[in-house]
Amino acid sequence: MRPVLVECVPNFSEGRRPEVVAAIAQSIGRVPGVHVLDIESDEDHHRCVVTYVGPLEPVLEAAFAGVQEAVRRIDLRTHQGSHPRIGAADVVPLVPIRGITLEELVPAARRLGERIARELGVPVFLYGEAATSPRRRDLSFLRRGNFEGLQAAMDGDPERRPDFGPPTVHPTAGGTVVGVRPALIAYNVELGTDDVEVARAIARRVREAGGGLVNVRAIGVKLERRGTTQISMNLLDYRKTPIYRAFELVAAEARRYGVEIRSSQVVGLVPEDALVECAEYYLRLDATWSRRQILERRLMELEAAEAERRPTDPAPGAEPSAG
Amino acid sequence: MRPVLVECVPNFSEGRRPEVVAAIAQSIGRVPGVHVLDIESDEDHHRCVVTYVGPLEPVLEAAFAGVQEAVRRIDLRTHQGSHPRIGAADVVPLVPIRGITLEELVPAARRLGERIARELGVPVFLYGEAATSPRRRDLSFLRRGNFEGLQAAMDGDPERRPDFGPPTVHPTAGGTVVGVRPALIAYNVELGTDDVEVARAIARRVREAGGGLVNVRAIGVKLERRGTTQISMNLLDYRKTPIYRAFELVAAEARRYGVEIRSSQVVGLVPEDALVECAEYYLRLDATWSRRQILERRLMELEAAEAERRPTDPAPGAEPSAG
Repeated sequence: MRPVLVECVPNFSEGRRPEVVAAIAQSIGRVPGVHVLDIESDEDHHRCVVTYVGPLEPVLEAAFAGVQEAVRRIDLRTHQGSHPRIGAADVVPLVPIRGITLEELVPAARRLGERIARELGVPVFLYGEAATSPRRRDLSFLRRGNFEGLQAAMDGDPERRPDFGPPTVHPTAGGTVVGVRPALIAYNVELGTDDVEVARAIARRVREAGGGLVNVRAIGVKLERRGTTQISMNLLDYRKTPIYRAFELVAAEARRYGVEIRSSQVVGLVPEDALVECAEYYLRLDATWSRRQILERRLMELEAAEAERRPTDPAPGAEPSAG
Repeated sequence: MRPVLVECVPNFSEGRRPEVVAAIAQSIGRVPGVHVLDIESDEDHHRCVVTYVGPLEPVLEAAFAGVQEAVRRIDLRTHQGSHPRIGAADVVPLVPIRGITLEELVPAARRLGERIARELGVPVFLYGEAATSPRRRDLSFLRRGNFEGLQAAMDGDPERRPDFGPPTVHPTAGGTVVGVRPALIAYNVELGTDDVEVARAIARRVREAGGGLVNVRAIGVKLERRGTTQISMNLLDYRKTPIYRAFELVAAEARRYGVEIRSSQVVGLVPEDALVECAEYYLRLDATWSRRQILERRLMELEAAEAERRPTDPAPGAEPSAG
């Protein structure tokens, strides 16, 4: 077994006071075992996103700490931004990276949600894999009406009642959505054309909404400085819809226009397995192949097994040397 | 920096007495930090190969321990096998896996060779990247004449003199070749034809000796049970000649015969970078791409940096809790 690794990407309704963004990120990063990988803050959206990883329990502890800090410092009664939100700590997605499945994260999301509701008095809604009804899987459904309309939604629609906590919106911090979703990959394919209409036509056919690939969002955009166009995609579940499939479908749809793919681009971080899967596809690796043949993984397994055999290291000098 | 990882694949002239093979492997595996990944023993060759990995110093310590055990237990005066060999511990290749280069391993190979010569009285020859002349890079050159002809070769050809140790062959253990080489990948491509002559013709054009890819050995073989044929390759330096290039050249040469590639196969272990490179090629990842975008690597960097900031963990209870 490789050590469990969970990612968490909480979104907070603060993008204009750097000291508040920093305080929230610090409350997360100071939990031992947790690594903050990225902090993105946007003034127009008045929102920030912290990306961090770690083993499960530290990740949950850090998520709670971040929410607590946001609830203390953010007052939604005076908050205005272009991005939809219902809470100071708006949404807390847990993402399985290694050694744990989506399903296995659901009880963890429930524990986290229950604790936020109990200790901070904030109503909590579960979404994604953790959702308690099909419609509630969708974040945008739970955020409809924003902070300002949340109490009315909770009162008026049984589907909008919180999973944990009081039936009343927290006066300053609103509500919080907690859930589980797969890792998302931001992936762009650059085309050998400067015609943005061609790029848009390809994007429409590649994305889920246009009869293309499930789990794929896509738009066609112009790259002014490079004089080309790009299919800009979000791959929402790379285990089901891998990178190579998005690449190959863009190539297939582009052929209709005699357009070639020039290159592609991964924006931000990508799980290693997403790249390994592409090598497996293009090399046509056969049924004898196993990812346990990857040297570094084999080694990690051996180290984990060794650590299990020796749950605690003896203190230096506690045992006589064998010579 | 990712933690340094070195592989060592020593070959010993013992393939018929399992207890001796086991004793050699145990002498290696009992060095802390070292992980034995594989032990292959062949009766016809009368030879065994141990594959193990670890940080540099433990790998060197284990290499010495394995050679010492082999020198103690193997008597080449009565040894007969089909494989060329000059010593009980015949060849000890060091292979950089992570965080260290071929060049950086050369001084380590020299240290190991010097110690074997000094403590065990075995003449040592450096080969591969560690060789002290171009001809000595080639293992087969240093092994010419076998154990039986080694003293004559050492006496007759200045190019065959040992780098370390006495000018005389060890009476029972012969000599030992120590060196540095890149990781080797055993990679087979299965063809959509049962005609082994076609497979052999393709193999001849793909391999270095036939005007094909440098660092590639290839043969065409029949897979009787599957009713197909295969190009069976050794990729001797995957960083310079990557897997995808071998795959694509086999595909190109096979097109002449209207033959398709059915699948491919990695035999044994493969370094992760070798697969990542294939994904990079086929996805045409652009100049913005860096392997630091791989989530797991980013995390390992962070953990290594953290370990550096805290060179020693305080003993439990040594510091008052922050509360």
